[in-house]
Amino acid sequence: MRVAELGEFGLIARIGRLAERVQGRGVVLGIGDDAAVLRPAAGEDIVVSTDAYVEGVHFRRGDGAASGIGHRALAANLSDLAAMGARPRAFLLSATLPPSTQVRFTLGLVGGMLALAERHHCPLVGGNVTRGREIGLTLTVLGAVRRGRALRRSAARVGDRLFVTGALGAAARARARSERSAAPLRHRPEPRIAAGLALARMRHSGACIDVSDGLVADLGHLLEASGVGARIDPARLPAARGASLREVLAGGEDYELLFTIRPGGPGSGALARRLGVAVSEIGAITRSGLEGLPSSAPGGFEHF
Amino acid sequence: MRVAELGEFGLIARIGRLAERVQGRGVVLGIGDDAAVLRPAAGEDIVVSTDAYVEGVHFRRGDGAASGIGHRALAANLSDLAAMGARPRAFLLSATLPPSTQVRFTLGLVGGMLALAERHHCPLVGGNVTRGREIGLTLTVLGAVRRGRALRRSAARVGDRLFVTGALGAAARARARSERSAAPLRHRPEPRIAAGLALARMRHSGACIDVSDGLVADLGHLLEASGVGARIDPARLPAARGASLREVLAGGEDYELLFTIRPGGPGSGALARRLGVAVSEIGAITRSGLEGLPSSAPGGFEHF
Repeated sequence: MRVAELGEFGLIARIGRLAERVQGRGVVLGIGDDAAVLRPAAGEDIVVSTDAYVEGVHFRRGDGAASGIGHRALAANLSDLAAMGARPRAFLLSATLPPSTQVRFTLGLVGGMLALAERHHCPLVGGNVTRGREIGLTLTVLGAVRRGRALRRSAARVGDRLFVTGALGAAARARARSERSAAPLRHRPEPRIAAGLALARMRHSGACIDVSDGLVADLGHLLEASGVGARIDPARLPAARGASLREVLAGGEDYELLFTIRPGGPGSGALARRLGVAVSEIGAITRSGLEGLPSSAPGGFEHF
Repeated sequence: MRVAELGEFGLIARIGRLAERVQGRGVVLGIGDDAAVLRPAAGEDIVVSTDAYVEGVHFRRGDGAASGIGHRALAANLSDLAAMGARPRAFLLSATLPPSTQVRFTLGLVGGMLALAERHHCPLVGGNVTRGREIGLTLTVLGAVRRGRALRRSAARVGDRLFVTGALGAAARARARSERSAAPLRHRPEPRIAAGLALARMRHSGACIDVSDGLVADLGHLLEASGVGARIDPARLPAARGASLREVLAGGEDYELLFTIRPGGPGSGALARRLGVAVSEIGAITRSGLEGLPSSAPGGFEHF
């Protein structure tokens, strides 16, 4: 069945039933009214981010299971909460769909989001469905962080040490493999929520950003926002298995956290234990410029 | 210049500069990080809604000034906050743009949003820009309401009196006129924020919904959510100047508030004074069914 046959309100009802399985704290009113209502706990700031996942740009309908596409769309958004050190509370989905889209495919997208959302106790509390020429999934995520403790990309200082979680280039590697062999894309990155929460609690934490556009691009965003430079040790960049230098530097969609630690703070071993994930020290913050990367280092993804 | 020439980050910087003119309460961190941070006041619930405004569905590029399209996109979203009795706090914009879109047109869209946002002290705190085949504007609005006081569409009870603000059919009338004469669409509906706030403070307020899909459709949503029926007095339906019965019943995009008042509450005169807008009593809530509307009453807008 196509969404044109089920209709807008029929589709919303089906999505609403799927969404019931994910419950979360602080939701006063979920799907079904003009808006959702959330109740912040005392002493909490609300963190909110929105990101789009568009057919032909971020995914193709043939990219493996619909649930994987849905997973990746929500992972991109949850990763922004992780980068702020926030705990996910709820998300909204605005879906643009061609009338010919299969209902099964659409519910597969939503199912992939909900499976990831369930692990983070992050219910779907609202959204809308609109007709369009291509599939567009715009998600909005809301999270909570202790007042004044949100991590910022602008907080790096000269002398901070620079770290990254996990390994880089896995998403690019998986995309390249899938394209070459015309096999489904199975990559399902995990947003580093627990690591972000641990960083936000740490006395020595500095700046933080997630690696969504690629290491070089996102490091550039962090340095620019902080008004500083960096010296990178290329030998310490953690490469995913089989990833080329290009994939490590500019792969994107890895959703690892790139962050700084003030002088006197823990090293990569202690950080790995606290954050619950491998951590590599890849350099240090300097006054200006960017040293240590190959001069031909590729930039990240630009939309136009 | 086209957005493809300015680039994603150039465009975001231009939007960021435009956005600076609108300031609001409770914004800890706006545009420029992985997410925005808002600080709720003590005893406040957060209200959040997202809605899309898509080229070819909700607007055409020739629909008059870009600023009018931007205005209508944000008005649709703010109207959802009005229907909850919430005070706008911030909004996010996720824009999908074909690379050939003119920068001037894009900034015109955003400018129209910001002019409306400024009157409601509702700053643009984040978002993203993505390439796509058609222009899609997905907005997310956040508002605040006193704890437990959000208005709901599910709160109508048998015996409530039914009211609507302003006049119905103006938006449909303006669209018809614009299409017939190939003249620009100048209609700029005002979301009933002040009226919603006043309703949320009132002891006798019942259910509330905004008229976005058309009176018949939105009344249907309210009755269904509340599990009740209604008797309408068609002679009391407030028609916008020149609007046909069809435009009054199914026009959509009027963004008036349709609400109920408990027995013993104020009548339309006193309500008009408190809400700061004309109010018409159009019927009453009954146990079930819908009486008083022409049997051929048209339904509202469905997306598929």
